[in-house]
Amino acid sequence: MEGAALTAQIVDIPSVSGEEGPLADAIERALRPLPHLAVYRDGNVIVARTTLGRPERVILAGHLDTVPLAGNLPSHAEGPRLYGCGTTDMKSGVAVQLRLAASLTAPGRDVTYVFYDCEEVAAERNGLGRLSRTRPDLLAGDFAVLMEPSSGEIEAGCQGTLRAEITAAGRRAHTARSWMGRNAIHEAGDILAVLRGYAAREPEVEGLRYHEGLNAVGIRGGVAGNVIPDECVVTVNYRFAPDRDAAQAEDFVRSLFPAWPVTVLDVAEGARPGLAHPAAAAFVAAVGGTPRAKLGWTDVARFAALGVPAVNYGPGVSEIAHTPDEYVEIAPIAACEARLRSWLGQ
Amino acid sequence: MEGAALTAQIVDIPSVSGEEGPLADAIERALRPLPHLAVYRDGNVIVARTTLGRPERVILAGHLDTVPLAGNLPSHAEGPRLYGCGTTDMKSGVAVQLRLAASLTAPGRDVTYVFYDCEEVAAERNGLGRLSRTRPDLLAGDFAVLMEPSSGEIEAGCQGTLRAEITAAGRRAHTARSWMGRNAIHEAGDILAVLRGYAAREPEVEGLRYHEGLNAVGIRGGVAGNVIPDECVVTVNYRFAPDRDAAQAEDFVRSLFPAWPVTVLDVAEGARPGLAHPAAAAFVAAVGGTPRAKLGWTDVARFAALGVPAVNYGPGVSEIAHTPDEYVEIAPIAACEARLRSWLGQ
Repeated sequence: MEGAALTAQIVDIPSVSGEEGPLADAIERALRPLPHLAVYRDGNVIVARTTLGRPERVILAGHLDTVPLAGNLPSHAEGPRLYGCGTTDMKSGVAVQLRLAASLTAPGRDVTYVFYDCEEVAAERNGLGRLSRTRPDLLAGDFAVLMEPSSGEIEAGCQGTLRAEITAAGRRAHTARSWMGRNAIHEAGDILAVLRGYAAREPEVEGLRYHEGLNAVGIRGGVAGNVIPDECVVTVNYRFAPDRDAAQAEDFVRSLFPAWPVTVLDVAEGARPGLAHPAAAAFVAAVGGTPRAKLGWTDVARFAALGVPAVNYGPGVSEIAHTPDEYVEIAPIAACEARLRSWLGQ
Repeated sequence: MEGAALTAQIVDIPSVSGEEGPLADAIERALRPLPHLAVYRDGNVIVARTTLGRPERVILAGHLDTVPLAGNLPSHAEGPRLYGCGTTDMKSGVAVQLRLAASLTAPGRDVTYVFYDCEEVAAERNGLGRLSRTRPDLLAGDFAVLMEPSSGEIEAGCQGTLRAEITAAGRRAHTARSWMGRNAIHEAGDILAVLRGYAAREPEVEGLRYHEGLNAVGIRGGVAGNVIPDECVVTVNYRFAPDRDAAQAEDFVRSLFPAWPVTVLDVAEGARPGLAHPAAAAFVAAVGGTPRAKLGWTDVARFAALGVPAVNYGPGVSEIAHTPDEYVEIAPIAACEARLRSWLGQ
């Protein structure tokens, strides 16, 4: 079965986050019998590995889950596109993984194929995260490719993300005598002014240009319709290039808001591109094109934290991920597979 | 029983809004047997009226309910003060009403005593409001005194209040590519700037100076921690002097925010002082002091809407209403009663 047909077959096994069981079962059934693969299962994570004793080991990883359905199953082809939930994010990538896993019986590099669950939901449920804590040995390797939608181009590294709350304080009073109080929501105007005055850094890291961002993603304040509010909390999200670590990102946010208490809610470091590693350089040479910086945070950061350079590379189109009209262009599926096949060698 | 002792007795019958039954029962038991009063009960509203055929009828009104308890019952006297939930707002006023109702068997003016429930909660539950719709005849009169805390001074009329939502719009995007969207919370900074630039009117109305206010009382916005928000809603409260009616108040708010949709949530007109009415002038002469403008909205506006001029006048201290340390000065209770007694005549 060629890649587009396999993509359609996988798409038609619904696997919204938390409900990946049937798809994981199908993948396990397909791979378990193959004598060139050692297959490991943990919950709905499937790991299949060649064990040829090659000098290099690389990883191809993809998540099985999708965002909730939006009346967009079963899949259907329309001209050059295949429509349906998960076509782009990222079952076309999973189809490529599966075809390589089944057919590359003796690749030039040892390969670890990872299929995992719960990527689209809260980080603590992420199957790759769980495996990195319980069985990091299964994720060991020289280089990893995460088959997230990247329009067939290499997106290297990823930006980090930090969320923090900035709190403006005031003094309560009855609104009929507002001058007896101090309005925390009005005060928060100064916090918003800082955000509006922020100029984004666009640093070059190992030859790739990143683009940071600092935005309010939430604001709340108010006690009652007749009370001058004494607190207003602005939640900000700072997306930072991988030349900054978590501590530097936090210092930067605090430095912007010296007048207010800053509470960091969570932070996830990004990942440097790591394209200088020989396995990565060989990948870039085989795939072609010009690598670009990945701006969003992705699971490549989990590999980076394990000391494994990683990139995003897949046939999907990230811009239409998570939309009801999600689709994948059919032609790039085979092209992606062919390039990976030439890189992995046989 | 003198006024302070009666206040303590009433305070010690808890009557948080919605739970006024036992206190209403006690008042009904006290007044029903008195031959000079016609007593009417509707739910927890008690109305007691003299029917002497006097040329003027005046109304003394007070609410029975309190804000939620804060560990401040039972009441206790401490030096010149009586402490406890409801002492100032407004059971000391209710005690004065009750003493006058019981003792003035043949006042020079016919008197309607109104005791009502649910003043401290949502307007639609207000017992006086209900009575004004179902039995406006029971509220007919030439002049009304609402015995809300006013530190023993006459507070005339009241300011109106309008609440509206001002909505800033944006365009959603992933925060990793924030420049693809438009941040509605950042945009709301312009709304807050209007509020901060607002200069309050302090108009003189019938000789009394009012003081307006325009404040954010709520703000909300945000979709998720990784999404540029497409909406931010600022709720504002405009307190307006009684020289403006509801339509003028709304026009004013809309004129300040021409760039954004403005949705009026609710509006309650204020009440002009109305001190020129003969019954009001006689009241001012009897009570003494210099009337001042009432800045908060009170139920005097309900009387104004029925065509009955009304003032706030009671022994409590409005500044400490609704605080855990609520108290009333004991001496003004008797002074308030004496002045009302001299005005009502016997």
